[in-house]
Amino acid sequence: MTGEHSSKQYDMDLEAIRSKVLLMGGLVESHFHDAMACFRSGNAEQAEAVIQSDLEVNRLEVALDDMCSHLIVKRQPAANDLRTVMATGKVITDLERIGDESTKIARIAKESAHGRRGLPIFSEYETVRVLASSVADMLHASLDAFARLDQEKAVKLIAQDAIIDNDFRSIMRNLITYMMEDPSTISSSLNTLWVAKAIERIGDHAKNIAEHTIYIVEGKDIRHSDYVAARQEQQ
Amino acid sequence: MTGEHSSKQYDMDLEAIRSKVLLMGGLVESHFHDAMACFRSGNAEQAEAVIQSDLEVNRLEVALDDMCSHLIVKRQPAANDLRTVMATGKVITDLERIGDESTKIARIAKESAHGRRGLPIFSEYETVRVLASSVADMLHASLDAFARLDQEKAVKLIAQDAIIDNDFRSIMRNLITYMMEDPSTISSSLNTLWVAKAIERIGDHAKNIAEHTIYIVEGKDIRHSDYVAARQEQQ
Repeated sequence: MTGEHSSKQYDMDLEAIRSKVLLMGGLVESHFHDAMACFRSGNAEQAEAVIQSDLEVNRLEVALDDMCSHLIVKRQPAANDLRTVMATGKVITDLERIGDESTKIARIAKESAHGRRGLPIFSEYETVRVLASSVADMLHASLDAFARLDQEKAVKLIAQDAIIDNDFRSIMRNLITYMMEDPSTISSSLNTLWVAKAIERIGDHAKNIAEHTIYIVEGKDIRHSDYVAARQEQQ
Repeated sequence: MTGEHSSKQYDMDLEAIRSKVLLMGGLVESHFHDAMACFRSGNAEQAEAVIQSDLEVNRLEVALDDMCSHLIVKRQPAANDLRTVMATGKVITDLERIGDESTKIARIAKESAHGRRGLPIFSEYETVRVLASSVADMLHASLDAFARLDQEKAVKLIAQDAIIDNDFRSIMRNLITYMMEDPSTISSSLNTLWVAKAIERIGDHAKNIAEHTIYIVEGKDIRHSDYVAARQEQQ
């Protein structure tokens, strides 16, 4: 039943979905970048624009889920191909969540813009700058690995998430010290902490995208397994 | 091609998946309950047991995803039926995330158990008790709505999430006041804040389950839409 014609149609449909996922990925990347720029500048209007632009990400999620369902119903893919479609669906969910986290950052930027009186006591943005930059790189690399189905790159990325988590915890300890030394920084420190948390979560989602990529390439569900540790020992 | 026989098989397979999802739901509910009990008692050993029990939730997620894929490949459901399977897959993801949040609560309980010297200055557990109880009710109701495909109940639940979000923000404001008045409470207040955040997220996932349920019943993707607001105006 699944002749050459049907299989070609499947490939074309899948390619259309993959292109659109990468488009969504690019949008989500620039969304994150813009949210961080707002947190640095404290520009409330720009922050509102970032919040609004999340609607486009949400629309893409719904449209892409629909495309995946149509592909399955129309092309009735075999087990191997279905695995790819299902994992692509999970990438879509992760991208939408990254959009949500960027929106949170933009919201905090907007609120803290209202609260600012003169210069901040310590620079909130500087506290999370390096973390944000590492996570932006990680997100870009995860989309790249998904685009090229580059398994090696995906494996390396998963290991990177542990470094991000460590950096987040170190930021948290520093912020607690600030707050204890000067309780008047509590409000702004908490804002910074929520931003750091959102960035760290974006790192988690980038890791998920890398895991889905490995699943597509290898057909192994490596979530919740010691697969990555085993792979790294081999290297 | 899809005769009565095949359709019956589909129904049976789907029912097996639904039963197992509800089993996973029950596990996740008691997991959340136990994590909160640890946060109240400060029992580090119990907390470790909760953390370990998340492995079972993760195993169920992988097994259920697999069952969904098999169902699609073997029974090749039509568009309507496929929608149900896909939405059920999303419920599974939300349940796994709820497990993650409970694990976070258990981790904080374990860490703060080590840090306790005598009685706490204010009771961390009391601060989040009502929020935890509302969210536990919401989670239970969302699983019930999913089990009975009860659309009315699901619509009500979605509205409830806004109340949870409000309660969370009010807890956050109170904690900031505590911290400012007495900086020695900063560490324990932050722990409480992370717990409150995890509870609030469990509420988000319960809302998602309600949305997936409506999607199964009505075939409408109401994520990111004003559907609920419109429904409530009608009532």
